[in-house]
This record gives sequence, structure tokens and C-alpha cells, in this order.
Amino acid sequence: MADFNLMTSLHIPGKTRIVQLVMDGLGGLPRELDGKTELEAAPTPNLDALAARSQLGLAVPVRPGITPGSGPAHLALFGYDPLTYDIGRGVLEALGIGFDLQPEDLAARGNFCTVDEQGLITDRRAGRIPTEVNQKLVALLREIRLPSVQTFVETVKEYRFVLVLRPTAGQTLQANIYDTDPQQLGVPPLPARAADEASAPTAALLNEWLTAARDLLKAHPPANSLNLRGIARDPGLPRFTTVYGLKAAAIATYPMYRGVARLVGMEVLPVAGETVEDQVETLRAHWDEYDYFFFHVKKTDSAGEDGDFEQKAAVIAHVDQVVVPAILALNPDVLIVTGDHSTPSLLRSHSWHPVPTLLWSRYCLPDGIAEFGERACSRGSLGLFPASDELPLAMGHALRLTKYGA
Amino acid sequence: MADFNLMTSLHIPGKTRIVQLVMDGLGGLPRELDGKTELEAAPTPNLDALAARSQLGLAVPVRPGITPGSGPAHLALFGYDPLTYDIGRGVLEALGIGFDLQPEDLAARGNFCTVDEQGLITDRRAGRIPTEVNQKLVALLREIRLPSVQTFVETVKEYRFVLVLRPTAGQTLQANIYDTDPQQLGVPPLPARAADEASAPTAALLNEWLTAARDLLKAHPPANSLNLRGIARDPGLPRFTTVYGLKAAAIATYPMYRGVARLVGMEVLPVAGETVEDQVETLRAHWDEYDYFFFHVKKTDSAGEDGDFEQKAAVIAHVDQVVVPAILALNPDVLIVTGDHSTPSLLRSHSWHPVPTLLWSRYCLPDGIAEFGERACSRGSLGLFPASDELPLAMGHALRLTKYGA
Repeated sequence: MADFNLMTSLHIPGKTRIVQLVMDGLGGLPRELDGKTELEAAPTPNLDALAARSQLGLAVPVRPGITPGSGPAHLALFGYDPLTYDIGRGVLEALGIGFDLQPEDLAARGNFCTVDEQGLITDRRAGRIPTEVNQKLVALLREIRLPSVQTFVETVKEYRFVLVLRPTAGQTLQANIYDTDPQQLGVPPLPARAADEASAPTAALLNEWLTAARDLLKAHPPANSLNLRGIARDPGLPRFTTVYGLKAAAIATYPMYRGVARLVGMEVLPVAGETVEDQVETLRAHWDEYDYFFFHVKKTDSAGEDGDFEQKAAVIAHVDQVVVPAILALNPDVLIVTGDHSTPSLLRSHSWHPVPTLLWSRYCLPDGIAEFGERACSRGSLGLFPASDELPLAMGHALRLTKYGA
Repeated sequence: MADFNLMTSLHIPGKTRIVQLVMDGLGGLPRELDGKTELEAAPTPNLDALAARSQLGLAVPVRPGITPGSGPAHLALFGYDPLTYDIGRGVLEALGIGFDLQPEDLAARGNFCTVDEQGLITDRRAGRIPTEVNQKLVALLREIRLPSVQTFVETVKEYRFVLVLRPTAGQTLQANIYDTDPQQLGVPPLPARAADEASAPTAALLNEWLTAARDLLKAHPPANSLNLRGIARDPGLPRFTTVYGLKAAAIATYPMYRGVARLVGMEVLPVAGETVEDQVETLRAHWDEYDYFFFHVKKTDSAGEDGDFEQKAAVIAHVDQVVVPAILALNPDVLIVTGDHSTPSLLRSHSWHPVPTLLWSRYCLPDGIAEFGERACSRGSLGLFPASDELPLAMGHALRLTKYGA
């Protein structure tokens, strides 16, 4: 909170523009062939040229050794210490699909799953049913009524949905409730169990819904049961306008990231399609309307999770070719290129490795390292730094902070 | 504590093995001859080859500019912030000789000293009497009885012993009591003085013992008096199994280090002799039984304290030749090579300089610096980092931590 006090008390108006280009899961590990990482192997002439005029460093998303989920990793990029601020998965998912979550709502991520005749889980993702099947099942689940609360069930995609309970006036729902997903096969889905006494009535409501829902689904294999995870309420995070005095916009295509952005008070801009070209169009169209843009590229992470080194390098090369020149052509005042965490193809998952990061502004002191890569960044003047320092640094470079003290 | 919450809540089981090889007082300063430090001057082909495949950095044991004692320096290596966790010297010494210290016990380190006819100290270490003499004197001191508490007197070595007071049921001893050693010559040994009111009864008990002990010793020059230091109780540190979920073993020959290890819940393994070869034998014999090994080399520090540059470099070279290949042959998953603090021969004492550190795992991103030395480490990607980050980093690299948040 100390840093937020600084930001909140020092920010000043201005006409400068900040872009934070986030390639999800950017950091990687070397392949055997030539000892290069995905980022080092990708042809990135534009990023390399920009690096020569920039400061480089390695960003630590949470703490050394800690592998972050997407929520905490993005909070850090936005300057929120992820150990101080916590968002439940249910809330992220609800916001990510554009659900108009109210402060008093309780949200859970739902997963359809498959159980056998004994009621034991055989597939935690119900064979990854198509989204169209999901939509039909969600229509069934919407028929379930609970006493005293409104329920909303919304498709996310494939086997995933969102359940929202909205209390009636004066009533409070408590979200300290364990996941019902036992996270293993061969055991039954669990009931909702309250982790404290105050959450017991809400857990009872959820169990009433779960019983009805699991009963309804019996006739619909492979999605013949379900689980709830990440049961949570809006954590009420400080807003970007308050913290930084920035009018902020998010350009992201994937629900989760649109959700986090909305939670910190960004406006989530419409994107015409799923490609980075579509995202660039959105950026151009709204350039004059905002002080700050969060530009999120998802496919670097997806390729890393698939263990596809070549594909991850190709996505990076494409961003270098298409996105970087387009941003530079708009003449931003500050450009940060980074990732939310590392997703090495070698590990096929998020990892704890710090994230290559580049900061350019006309007031940066260039390191003179004409390469954007993990090892290049480890020699940069930003050093090994907390990812939550990126926004304060950007604020300084955008001349958006006044002097601290006389 | 936040970090321990992270470790405690994220650790997961696994079959991976971590080795932390600690050369005590590893860091040094350049000699005039060629401007090389002890570590830089020592021939270390195995460490240099390992460095080329590793990440390097400089570990700060406590805070910049602060010279640590052995206790705090080791707590930091084990991930315990030494400003949060404090162990009294008396407790370390008692545990170090294998004394079965109980949580309610009060322990003090004792030093025999020499006083002249006026009772003024002429030698704070009693001419470093042989351990055999110490044992005879300790037998005398054991005859002293105190009301209501049990007393234990144990030889450590040379002029050093341990005094333990064990309270009777329901009684509590308070350890906020100053050292009786005035730390200078030409003045008398001091009585025990309580630093707070609650400790006054315990100080009175200690003074009763001190009076009897000093009286008994009058006839035994050069050890004709004594002092008590580091009066303390077991601080009840969180245990390695709780914090990291690691079954941990210590391979150390010197009492102090065995003591700290025991205090954080490590099992202290028997070593057949005093050499690093003996320690390697212990490591081999117990390799399958533990998740983590603390391997402590004492003689680097002893040589530094003696101001013997050549000897310190020779100890490092010997570790490189004998210990490093032996550890690598066991195929660990994570190997950290570090020191607890610096002990430059130039200073003949512990110092505040950050400690050269190497981290290897198959998931590390090698810096490509084929040398293990202070200057090489200052260019490494671990940067200048708190020594207490080593264990969390090792946990990440050992795949022993699950993701933080969704």
C-alpha cells in the first residue's frame, strides 16, 4: 500500500501516452539445438533495434522461485503487489466473459466433468465438450432456482462455465468456501464446504444448487456432473484512475485478461477478431482517448503450454513484425515490452523464471544492448526487479509524477 | 513471514534433491600480487565448468553493509530473515555439542578466562587451555547446586563450555540478561545483569552460580575465572518440514553449524572424521533418505580468519577437486554453491561483502559465464540478492512449489 500512497499522492495530469505490451508467458528456457530460448531464437529485428535505445531488465512477478497464475502475474504488471491483492478465480472468469458483476455478487468457476456409474470422476474436463454443448447444458442449469438469491449461469468455453449468486438486499454472501473439485480421478465431486462459520449459509445455498445441478446433468454424459472452483467476491481493488490518474484501456482477446483489466478499472476495448492485427486496429482507433494501453498477446503462452518452441518463437516474431512497428508509429511516450510470467516450452507450464523486459522512453538511459532476450535483459540496467515496479517507472518516464518532498 | 506463508502453502511433494554446498566465509578480497580474490586465485576447474551451465549472483546475508555472525548468516541461507529470527549464542553452542536442549531451558556459552591477583582479566581465553583441562574443570563446576533449577555444564572445546539451567515444572526462566564478559582486559568479570525486570530472578540464580564457580576456579590458573555470554532460550523457529516440506539433513563437522541446522529441524548426520572426504562419505551413505542436504565446509572461514590467503584458496581448490564432482556424481536436481558470509584474508574476520553464489538445475537459464568468482558472480542473472531467497529459488527449480493463484 505504501507504493500506492506514493502514486496516489504524486500523480499529475499530462498528455503523455504509455503502452504496456504484454506477451503472455514470454520468458523461456534454452533448446538443445543451439542453447537459445524462444525469444532469443525468434527473429526480432524491431525489438532488437528498440532494445538498443532502451533499458532492459528481468521482472520478478511475485517472489523469487514462485510460479504465478495469470491473475497475480497481471496484478503485478499493473503495480499491485500480488501478495497484498488477491482475486478469486470465479471473479476473474465472470469478468472475463463480460458479466456485469456487482460488488455483492458471489462468483464461481464451474467445470463440467464426467463421473462413472459409482459417481467417481473419470474426466475432470468432461472430454472437453464443444462450447455448443456447454451452452445447451447451461440453459438447463439456468432453470434451477434458489431461495432468496438470484442465480446466473454463463458459458465460458468448452467444459467451463460461471455461476454467480446475487443476494437480495440486506443479505450478504460469504465466499470462504473450498473448491468442490477434488483435483483427482476416481473420487466423487465434493460438496461445498465452508472454511469459516460465516460462510456456512452460503455453502448450504451452493450445495442446494449443486445437488440440483448434478441431478439434472445425470442424463447428459460425458458432462454428467460438475464442480465449482475459485468461489469468490469482487475484492474491490483500487482503480487505475485513483492510483495513477490514468485513463486506461485494455486490448485483450482472452476473457481472463479482460477480466483483470476491468477489475483495476480499465476500459476493455472491443476487438473485431482474435488476431494481433485486430488488436492493433483497436489501438489505432482509440489512440487519442486514453493515457495508458494494456496490449495483451495470448498466443505466446498457449504455444509454451503446448511445449511448441517453434510456434512460440513464431508468435514472438509475428508480434515483432506487426505489433511493435504499429505501436512505435503511433509515437507513444513510454513503451514497455514484457510478459506476465515465463512459460518455457521445456516445462509446458508457467514457471518461476523472471521475465525479459524492455522500457523505452525519450528519457530512458539506453543500455546499448541491441538484443531483446533473457540473457541480454539480465545484463540490463533495470536489473532483476519486481514486476510491480513497471507502472511506477512508466509514470516517471511519462512525466506523470511530481516530486516527492521538497 | 509472508514468504513463509508462501512456502508453507505452496510446497508439494516430489522426488527431487537439493544440495546447498556452503563454504564458510567464501567471499574474499583481492591480494596485491595479481588483484585476485581467494576464490578467483584458486584453481577451480569443476566449479568453473559448472558455472558455465549455471546462474550466478551475489548473496547479501543480512542487509547491505552488515557483517553477520555465523548464526544469522546461516539462518539467511536457510531462508529465515535474520532480522526476524534471532538465536542466542548459548542456544547455538548447546545444540552444537548435541546437548538435548528443552524448550524451557536457558543456555549460556561459557568462557574460561585468566584474572590477576586484583581479579582483573589478563586473558579472555585462559591461554586457550587444552580440552582435557576444560573437562576436568567442568567436572568441578558440575558440583555446584542451585535452588529450584537443574544445572548442566558441558565442555565444548579449549576454553569454551556451555551452562544450561533447566527450570522445575511451572517455573519460567527469562533470558534477557547481558553477557558477563566485559570484552576487554584489565577489568573484572561482570555479574549477570538483567535487562528487564522479568529476568531479574534468573539473573540472581546465574549470579549465585557465577560466585560459586569463580570461587571454585581460583585454585586453577590459568583458568581461574569465567564468563557467560549469549544467555538465551530456544527461539522455536519454524521447521524445515513445515516451511518447505523437505526432509532435510545437515553434514557439518563444527558444533555451531550442526546447532543451527538442528534448530530449523534438520537431522544432523554423523560424520566419521573432520575432513570433507568424510563428509562426502556421509552424503553418499544417506543420499536416498533426504530431500535436501546442507553441506558445510568450515576451513575456508578458518583460513580467512587466520589471514592466510594461500590456505583459503587451497581449501577452495580442494573442495572443487573432491566435493563438487562427488555431489554432481550423485545427480542432484538442484545444486547451490555459496558461503554464509565473506571472510577476506585481508580483514582476518567476517565481513559485509556479498557472497559469490552459483545455482544449477536443469531448469536454470545459464548465464554462460565460465568462471566462479566474485566478479564473475556480479555479472550473473541472480544479481545482488538476499541470501534468504536461495531456498525459495531452490524450491522452484526442484519443482517443489505449485502455482500461486489462478
